[in-house]
Amino acid sequence: MNKVLLATRNRKKLIELQRILDGALGAHRVALIGLDDVEAYPELPETGLTFGENALIKAREGCRRTGLPTIADDSGLAVDALNGMPGVFSARWAGRHGDDQANLQLVLDQIGDVPDEHRGASFVCTVALVLPGGKEHLVDGRQAGRLLRAPRGDGGFGYDPIFLGDGQDRTNAELTPQEKDAISHRGKALRELAALVAKVL
Amino acid sequence: MNKVLLATRNRKKLIELQRILDGALGAHRVALIGLDDVEAYPELPETGLTFGENALIKAREGCRRTGLPTIADDSGLAVDALNGMPGVFSARWAGRHGDDQANLQLVLDQIGDVPDEHRGASFVCTVALVLPGGKEHLVDGRQAGRLLRAPRGDGGFGYDPIFLGDGQDRTNAELTPQEKDAISHRGKALRELAALVAKVL
Repeated sequence: MNKVLLATRNRKKLIELQRILDGALGAHRVALIGLDDVEAYPELPETGLTFGENALIKAREGCRRTGLPTIADDSGLAVDALNGMPGVFSARWAGRHGDDQANLQLVLDQIGDVPDEHRGASFVCTVALVLPGGKEHLVDGRQAGRLLRAPRGDGGFGYDPIFLGDGQDRTNAELTPQEKDAISHRGKALRELAALVAKVL
Repeated sequence: MNKVLLATRNRKKLIELQRILDGALGAHRVALIGLDDVEAYPELPETGLTFGENALIKAREGCRRTGLPTIADDSGLAVDALNGMPGVFSARWAGRHGDDQANLQLVLDQIGDVPDEHRGASFVCTVALVLPGGKEHLVDGRQAGRLLRAPRGDGGFGYDPIFLGDGQDRTNAELTPQEKDAISHRGKALRELAALVAKVL
Protein backbone atom coordinates (compact mmCIF):
# COMPACT_ATOMS: atom_id res chain seq x y z
CA MET A 1 0.00 0.00 0.00
CA ASN A 2 1.38 3.42 -1.00
CA LYS A 3 1.41 6.04 1.73
CA VAL A 4 0.63 9.46 0.20
CA LEU A 5 0.48 12.88 1.87
CA LEU A 6 -2.42 15.20 1.09
CA ALA A 7 -1.11 18.63 2.14
CA THR A 8 -4.17 19.85 4.01
CA ARG A 9 -5.45 20.05 7.58
CA ASN A 10 -9.02 19.69 6.33
CA ARG A 11 -10.26 16.25 7.44
CA LYS A 12 -13.21 16.39 5.00
CA LYS A 13 -10.89 16.81 2.04
CA LEU A 14 -8.88 13.81 3.22
CA ILE A 15 -11.95 11.56 3.45
CA GLU A 16 -13.30 12.81 0.11
CA LEU A 17 -10.08 12.12 -1.80
CA GLN A 18 -9.56 8.72 -0.11
CA ARG A 19 -13.09 7.74 -1.25
CA ILE A 20 -12.42 8.88 -4.83
CA LEU A 21 -9.06 7.10 -4.98
CA ASP A 22 -10.53 3.87 -3.54
CA GLY A 23 -13.32 4.06 -6.10
CA ALA A 24 -10.95 4.59 -9.00
CA LEU A 25 -8.07 2.29 -7.98
CA GLY A 26 -9.70 -0.25 -5.68
CA ALA A 27 -9.32 -0.21 -1.90
CA HIS A 28 -5.90 -0.57 -0.20
CA ARG A 29 -3.87 0.85 -3.10
CA VAL A 30 -3.24 4.25 -1.48
CA ALA A 31 -3.39 5.33 2.16
CA LEU A 32 -3.71 9.08 2.53
CA ILE A 33 -2.35 10.99 5.51
CA GLY A 34 -2.88 14.71 6.22
CA LEU A 35 -0.69 17.47 7.64
CA ASP A 36 -2.06 16.83 11.13
CA ASP A 37 -0.45 13.39 10.90
CA VAL A 38 3.00 14.94 10.30
CA GLU A 39 4.89 16.16 13.36
CA ALA A 40 5.58 19.89 13.72
CA TYR A 41 4.50 20.84 10.23
CA PRO A 42 4.66 24.66 9.87
CA GLU A 43 1.99 26.96 8.40
CA LEU A 44 2.99 28.13 4.92
CA PRO A 45 1.85 31.48 3.50
CA GLU A 46 0.08 31.14 0.11
CA THR A 47 2.18 33.50 -1.93
CA GLY A 48 1.50 32.12 -5.42
CA LEU A 49 -0.32 34.21 -8.02
CA THR A 50 -1.91 31.21 -9.76
CA PHE A 51 -3.71 28.11 -8.49
CA GLY A 52 -0.93 25.94 -9.92
CA GLU A 53 1.81 27.90 -8.13
CA ASN A 54 0.03 27.59 -4.79
CA ALA A 55 -0.65 23.87 -5.27
CA LEU A 56 2.98 23.24 -6.23
CA ILE A 57 4.37 25.29 -3.30
CA LYS A 58 2.33 23.15 -0.88
CA ALA A 59 3.04 19.81 -2.56
CA ARG A 60 6.80 20.43 -2.93
CA GLU A 61 7.13 21.40 0.73
CA GLY A 62 5.15 18.35 1.86
CA CYS A 63 7.29 16.01 -0.24
CA ARG A 64 10.52 17.65 0.91
CA ARG A 65 9.59 17.33 4.59
CA THR A 66 8.14 13.79 4.56
CA GLY A 67 9.76 12.05 1.60
CA LEU A 68 6.27 10.90 0.57
CA PRO A 69 4.44 11.43 -2.73
CA THR A 70 2.43 14.56 -1.95
CA ILE A 71 -0.84 15.94 -3.32
CA ALA A 72 -2.01 19.53 -2.79
CA ASP A 73 -4.79 21.60 -4.32
CA ASP A 74 -5.81 25.20 -4.73
CA SER A 75 -9.10 26.43 -6.11
CA GLY A 76 -11.34 29.45 -6.48
CA LEU A 77 -13.71 31.49 -8.57
CA ALA A 78 -12.60 33.29 -11.75
CA VAL A 79 -15.02 36.09 -12.74
CA ASP A 80 -14.80 37.26 -16.36
CA ALA A 81 -15.68 40.89 -15.59
CA LEU A 82 -12.96 40.92 -12.89
CA ASN A 83 -10.26 39.62 -15.27
CA GLY A 84 -10.32 36.20 -13.60
CA MET A 85 -10.26 37.46 -10.02
CA PRO A 86 -10.91 36.74 -7.10
CA GLY A 87 -8.84 33.73 -8.29
CA VAL A 88 -6.17 32.76 -5.76
CA PHE A 89 -7.63 35.36 -3.38
CA SER A 90 -11.13 33.78 -3.40
CA ALA A 91 -11.11 32.80 0.28
CA ARG A 92 -9.97 36.26 1.44
CA TRP A 93 -11.47 38.57 -1.19
CA ALA A 94 -13.18 40.87 1.33
CA GLY A 95 -9.96 41.06 3.36
CA ARG A 96 -10.45 38.42 6.07
CA HIS A 97 -9.77 34.72 5.42
CA GLY A 98 -12.81 32.47 5.17
CA ASP A 99 -15.67 34.99 5.48
CA ASP A 100 -17.84 33.41 2.75
CA GLN A 101 -20.72 35.82 3.18
CA ALA A 102 -18.56 38.95 2.93
CA ASN A 103 -16.60 37.57 -0.05
CA LEU A 104 -19.75 36.70 -1.99
CA GLN A 105 -21.44 40.03 -1.21
CA LEU A 106 -18.35 41.98 -2.30
CA VAL A 107 -18.28 40.24 -5.70
CA LEU A 108 -22.01 40.98 -6.15
CA ASP A 109 -21.43 44.66 -5.26
CA GLN A 110 -18.37 45.01 -7.49
CA ILE A 111 -20.16 43.72 -10.59
CA GLY A 112 -23.54 45.22 -9.67
CA ASP A 113 -23.65 47.32 -12.87
CA VAL A 114 -22.36 44.55 -15.14
CA PRO A 115 -25.09 43.42 -17.57
CA ASP A 116 -26.22 39.78 -17.68
CA GLU A 117 -24.31 38.92 -20.85
CA HIS A 118 -21.00 39.77 -19.17
CA ARG A 119 -21.55 37.91 -15.86
CA GLY A 120 -19.69 34.74 -16.88
CA ALA A 121 -17.50 32.99 -14.30
CA SER A 122 -15.76 29.65 -13.70
CA PHE A 123 -14.85 27.62 -10.67
CA VAL A 124 -11.30 26.32 -11.11
CA CYS A 125 -9.41 23.66 -9.14
CA THR A 126 -5.76 22.77 -9.71
CA VAL A 127 -4.14 19.75 -8.05
CA ALA A 128 -0.40 19.12 -7.85
CA LEU A 129 1.26 15.74 -7.32
CA VAL A 130 4.97 15.85 -6.44
CA LEU A 131 6.97 12.62 -6.28
CA PRO A 132 10.09 12.00 -4.15
CA GLY A 133 12.26 11.66 -7.27
CA GLY A 134 11.35 15.27 -8.19
CA LYS A 135 8.71 14.58 -10.84
CA GLU A 136 5.81 17.05 -10.74
CA HIS A 137 2.30 16.76 -12.20
CA LEU A 138 -0.56 19.27 -12.41
CA VAL A 139 -4.18 18.50 -13.30
CA ASP A 140 -7.14 20.81 -13.19
CA GLY A 141 -10.91 20.92 -13.40
CA ARG A 142 -13.23 23.74 -14.36
CA GLN A 143 -16.97 24.38 -14.08
CA ALA A 144 -18.21 27.20 -16.31
CA GLY A 145 -21.30 29.23 -15.53
CA ARG A 146 -22.49 32.70 -14.61
CA LEU A 147 -23.17 34.79 -11.52
CA LEU A 148 -26.68 35.63 -10.33
CA ARG A 149 -27.59 38.95 -8.67
CA ALA A 150 -28.57 37.43 -5.29
CA PRO A 151 -27.73 34.18 -3.44
CA ARG A 152 -29.94 31.09 -3.76
CA GLY A 153 -29.68 27.85 -1.74
CA ASP A 154 -28.22 26.71 1.57
CA GLY A 155 -25.85 23.94 0.49
CA GLY A 156 -22.22 24.10 -0.55
CA PHE A 157 -19.97 26.90 0.63
CA GLY A 158 -18.02 29.88 -0.67
CA TYR A 159 -19.51 31.36 -3.83
CA ASP A 160 -21.86 28.39 -4.51
CA PRO A 161 -25.11 30.35 -3.77
CA ILE A 162 -24.49 32.90 -6.55
CA PHE A 163 -23.08 30.47 -9.16
CA LEU A 164 -25.32 28.92 -11.81
CA GLY A 165 -23.40 26.28 -13.76
CA ASP A 166 -23.91 26.05 -17.53
CA GLY A 167 -26.90 23.82 -18.29
CA GLN A 168 -28.17 24.00 -14.68
CA ASP A 169 -31.34 25.60 -13.34
CA ARG A 170 -30.15 25.35 -9.73
CA THR A 171 -27.17 27.14 -8.16
CA ASN A 172 -24.33 25.01 -6.83
CA ALA A 173 -25.78 25.66 -3.34
CA GLU A 174 -29.08 24.05 -4.45
CA LEU A 175 -27.46 20.79 -5.64
CA THR A 176 -26.96 17.70 -3.48
CA PRO A 177 -23.30 16.97 -2.67
CA GLN A 178 -23.42 14.05 -5.14
CA GLU A 179 -24.89 16.22 -7.91
CA LYS A 180 -22.29 18.88 -7.22
CA ASP A 181 -19.39 16.38 -7.22
CA ALA A 182 -20.47 15.10 -10.63
CA ILE A 183 -20.08 18.49 -12.34
CA SER A 184 -17.86 20.60 -10.10
CA HIS A 185 -14.32 21.81 -10.80
CA ARG A 186 -13.16 19.89 -7.74
CA GLY A 187 -14.88 16.65 -8.70
CA LYS A 188 -13.39 16.79 -12.20
CA ALA A 189 -9.88 17.57 -10.97
CA LEU A 190 -9.92 14.81 -8.34
CA ARG A 191 -11.13 12.18 -10.84
CA GLU A 192 -8.33 13.22 -13.17
CA LEU A 193 -5.90 13.01 -10.26
CA ALA A 194 -7.09 9.47 -9.47
CA ALA A 195 -6.34 8.44 -13.05
CA LEU A 196 -2.89 10.02 -12.76
CA VAL A 197 -2.15 8.28 -9.44
CA ALA A 198 -3.12 4.96 -11.00
CA LYS A 199 -0.48 5.53 -13.67
CA VAL A 200 2.46 6.92 -11.71
CA LEU A 201 2.27 5.23 -8.28
CA MET B 1 -14.26 79.88 -30.29
CA ASN B 2 -15.16 76.18 -30.27
CA LYS B 3 -17.68 75.10 -27.67
CA VAL B 4 -16.79 71.60 -26.37
CA LEU B 5 -18.61 69.41 -23.83
CA LEU B 6 -16.61 67.69 -21.11
CA ALA B 7 -18.96 64.91 -19.98
CA THR B 8 -18.55 65.35 -16.23
CA ARG B 9 -20.31 67.06 -13.32
CA ASN B 10 -16.96 67.59 -11.60
CA ARG B 11 -16.22 71.32 -11.68
CA LYS B 12 -12.55 70.73 -10.77
CA LYS B 13 -12.04 68.53 -13.83
CA LEU B 14 -13.59 71.24 -16.00
CA ILE B 15 -11.26 73.95 -14.69
CA GLU B 16 -8.21 71.64 -14.92
CA LEU B 17 -8.83 70.70 -18.56
CA GLN B 18 -9.66 74.30 -19.56
CA ARG B 19 -6.31 75.37 -18.07
CA ILE B 20 -4.41 72.63 -19.92
CA LEU B 21 -6.16 73.41 -23.23
CA ASP B 22 -5.52 77.15 -22.85
CA GLY B 23 -1.88 76.43 -22.11
CA ALA B 24 -1.48 74.16 -25.11
CA LEU B 25 -3.63 76.01 -27.68
CA GLY B 26 -3.65 79.60 -26.44
CA ALA B 27 -6.64 81.19 -24.69
CA HIS B 28 -10.03 81.54 -26.42
CA ARG B 29 -9.60 78.58 -28.76
CA VAL B 30 -11.90 76.21 -26.83
CA ALA B 31 -14.66 76.95 -24.31
CA LEU B 32 -15.51 73.92 -22.20
CA ILE B 33 -18.94 73.32 -20.72
CA GLY B 34 -19.90 70.51 -18.31
CA LEU B 35 -22.96 68.29 -17.88
CA ASP B 36 -24.42 70.73 -15.34
CA ASP B 37 -24.59 73.27 -18.17
CA VAL B 38 -26.77 70.92 -20.26
CA GLU B 39 -30.46 70.84 -19.44
CA ALA B 40 -32.00 67.62 -18.07
CA TYR B 41 -28.96 65.46 -18.69
CA PRO B 42 -29.62 61.96 -17.28
CA GLU B 43 -27.29 59.88 -15.10
CA LEU B 44 -25.69 57.06 -17.12
CA PRO B 45 -24.61 53.77 -15.55
CA GLU B 46 -20.94 52.92 -16.22
CA THR B 47 -21.36 49.48 -17.77
CA GLY B 48 -18.11 49.26 -19.75
CA LEU B 49 -15.49 46.65 -18.88
CA THR B 50 -12.54 48.81 -20.01
CA PHE B 51 -11.60 52.45 -19.44
CA GLY B 52 -11.96 53.08 -23.18
CA GLU B 53 -15.47 51.62 -23.31
CA ASN B 54 -16.64 53.78 -20.41
CA ALA B 55 -15.05 56.93 -21.84
CA LEU B 56 -16.64 56.26 -25.25
CA ILE B 57 -20.09 55.52 -23.77
CA LYS B 58 -20.05 58.89 -22.00
CA ALA B 59 -18.59 60.88 -24.90
CA ARG B 60 -20.96 59.38 -27.51
CA GLU B 61 -23.99 60.12 -25.37
CA GLY B 62 -22.85 63.69 -24.74
CA CYS B 63 -22.26 64.32 -28.42
CA ARG B 64 -25.58 62.73 -29.39
CA ARG B 65 -27.53 64.86 -26.92
CA THR B 66 -25.79 68.21 -27.51
CA GLY B 67 -24.38 68.07 -31.02
CA LEU B 68 -21.08 69.32 -29.57
CA PRO B 69 -17.61 67.75 -29.77
CA THR B 70 -17.51 65.83 -26.49
CA ILE B 71 -14.66 64.73 -24.26
CA ALA B 72 -15.03 62.10 -21.52
CA ASP B 73 -12.52 60.21 -19.39
CA ASP B 74 -12.31 57.13 -17.25
CA SER B 75 -9.41 56.15 -15.06
CA GLY B 76 -8.31 53.86 -12.29
CA LEU B 77 -5.66 51.64 -10.77
CA ALA B 78 -4.49 48.40 -12.42
CA VAL B 79 -2.78 46.05 -9.92
CA ASP B 80 -0.56 43.36 -11.46
CA ALA B 81 -1.32 40.75 -8.78
CA LEU B 82 -5.07 41.36 -9.30
CA ASN B 83 -4.84 40.84 -13.09
CA GLY B 84 -5.29 44.57 -13.72
CA MET B 85 -8.17 45.09 -11.29
CA PRO B 86 -9.69 47.18 -9.62
CA GLY B 87 -9.55 48.79 -13.10
CA VAL B 88 -12.94 50.19 -14.12
CA PHE B 89 -14.24 49.34 -10.63
CA SER B 90 -11.56 51.43 -8.85
CA ALA B 91 -14.02 53.96 -7.38
CA ARG B 92 -16.36 51.26 -6.01
CA TRP B 93 -13.96 48.39 -5.28
CA ALA B 94 -15.13 47.91 -1.67
CA GLY B 95 -18.77 48.00 -2.83
CA ARG B 96 -19.81 51.61 -2.25
CA HIS B 97 -19.01 54.36 -4.76
CA GLY B 98 -16.33 56.85 -3.73
CA ASP B 99 -15.22 55.42 -0.37
CA ASP B 100 -11.49 56.01 -0.97
CA GLN B 101 -10.41 54.75 2.44
CA ALA B 102 -12.33 51.45 2.16
CA ASN B 103 -11.18 50.87 -1.43
CA LEU B 104 -7.53 51.43 -0.58
CA GLN B 105 -7.67 49.25 2.56
CA LEU B 106 -9.34 46.41 0.64
CA VAL B 107 -6.57 46.35 -1.98
CA LEU B 108 -3.95 46.32 0.80
CA ASP B 109 -5.76 43.41 2.51
CA GLN B 110 -6.25 41.44 -0.71
CA ILE B 111 -2.56 41.53 -1.62
CA GLY B 112 -1.31 41.38 1.97
CA ASP B 113 0.62 38.14 1.32
CA VAL B 114 1.99 39.22 -2.07
CA PRO B 115 5.77 39.68 -1.88
CA ASP B 116 7.38 43.02 -2.79
CA GLU B 117 8.60 41.92 -6.22
CA HIS B 118 5.01 41.25 -7.34
CA ARG B 119 3.40 44.47 -6.05
CA GLY B 120 3.59 46.35 -9.36
CA ALA B 121 0.64 48.56 -10.37
CA SER B 122 -0.22 51.34 -12.82
CA PHE B 123 -2.56 54.29 -12.80
CA VAL B 124 -4.33 54.45 -16.17
CA CYS B 125 -6.44 57.23 -17.70
CA THR B 126 -8.24 56.97 -21.02
CA VAL B 127 -9.86 60.00 -22.67
CA ALA B 128 -12.35 59.84 -25.54
CA LEU B 129 -13.12 62.64 -27.98
CA VAL B 130 -16.24 62.16 -30.11
CA LEU B 131 -17.00 64.61 -32.92
CA PRO B 132 -20.47 65.42 -34.34
CA GLY B 133 -19.58 63.87 -37.68
CA GLY B 134 -19.06 60.53 -35.90
CA LYS B 135 -15.26 60.48 -35.70
CA GLU B 136 -13.95 59.00 -32.45
CA HIS B 137 -10.52 59.34 -30.83
CA LEU B 138 -9.00 57.70 -27.76
CA VAL B 139 -5.80 58.73 -25.97
CA ASP B 140 -4.42 57.40 -22.75
CA GLY B 141 -1.81 58.01 -20.11
CA ARG B 142 -0.16 55.65 -17.67
CA GLN B 143 1.96 56.00 -14.55
CA ALA B 144 3.79 52.82 -13.55
CA GLY B 145 4.85 52.08 -9.98
CA ARG B 146 4.23 49.76 -7.08
CA LEU B 147 2.01 49.50 -4.01
CA LEU B 148 3.30 50.06 -0.49
CA ARG B 149 1.99 48.15 2.56
CA ALA B 150 0.54 51.20 4.35
CA PRO B 151 -0.65 54.67 3.23
CA ARG B 152 1.71 57.68 3.24
CA GLY B 153 0.77 61.33 2.66
CA ASP B 154 -2.33 63.52 2.83
CA GLY B 155 -2.55 64.89 -0.71
CA GLY B 156 -4.24 63.52 -3.79
CA PHE B 157 -7.16 61.12 -3.51
CA GLY B 158 -8.15 57.53 -4.25
CA TYR B 159 -5.21 55.14 -4.15
CA ASP B 160 -2.55 57.92 -4.17
CA PRO B 161 -1.35 57.26 -0.58
CA ILE B 162 -0.29 53.66 -1.32
CA PHE B 163 1.16 54.27 -4.81
CA LEU B 164 4.88 54.88 -5.28
CA GLY B 165 5.60 55.87 -8.89
CA ASP B 166 8.69 54.47 -10.61
CA GLY B 167 11.69 56.69 -9.87
CA GLN B 168 9.89 58.45 -6.98
CA ASP B 169 10.69 58.36 -3.27
CA ARG B 170 7.34 59.95 -2.35
CA THR B 171 3.87 58.47 -2.86
CA ASN B 172 1.48 60.32 -5.16
CA ALA B 173 -0.19 61.66 -1.99
CA GLU B 174 3.13 63.24 -0.93
CA LEU B 175 3.61 65.17 -4.20
CA THR B 176 2.40 68.72 -4.81
CA PRO B 177 -0.46 68.95 -7.35
CA GLN B 178 2.02 70.38 -9.88
CA GLU B 179 4.52 67.56 -9.31
CA LYS B 180 1.73 64.99 -9.62
CA ASP B 181 0.34 66.54 -12.84
CA ALA B 182 3.78 66.35 -14.43
CA ILE B 183 4.03 62.56 -14.07
CA SER B 184 0.50 61.28 -13.53
CA HIS B 185 -1.61 59.15 -15.88
CA ARG B 186 -4.16 61.96 -15.97
CA GLY B 187 -1.64 64.69 -16.71
CA LYS B 188 -0.13 62.66 -19.57
CA ALA B 189 -3.51 61.79 -21.08
CA LEU B 190 -4.79 65.38 -20.92
CA ARG B 191 -1.65 66.79 -22.55
CA GLU B 192 -2.04 64.23 -25.32
CA LEU B 193 -5.71 65.20 -25.64
CA ALA B 194 -4.74 68.89 -25.96
CA ALA B 195 -2.43 68.02 -28.85
CA LEU B 196 -5.26 66.03 -30.46
CA VAL B 197 -7.77 68.87 -30.01
CA ALA B 198 -5.30 71.27 -31.66
CA LYS B 199 -5.24 69.01 -34.70
CA VAL B 200 -8.91 68.04 -35.14
CA LEU B 201 -10.89 71.11 -33.96
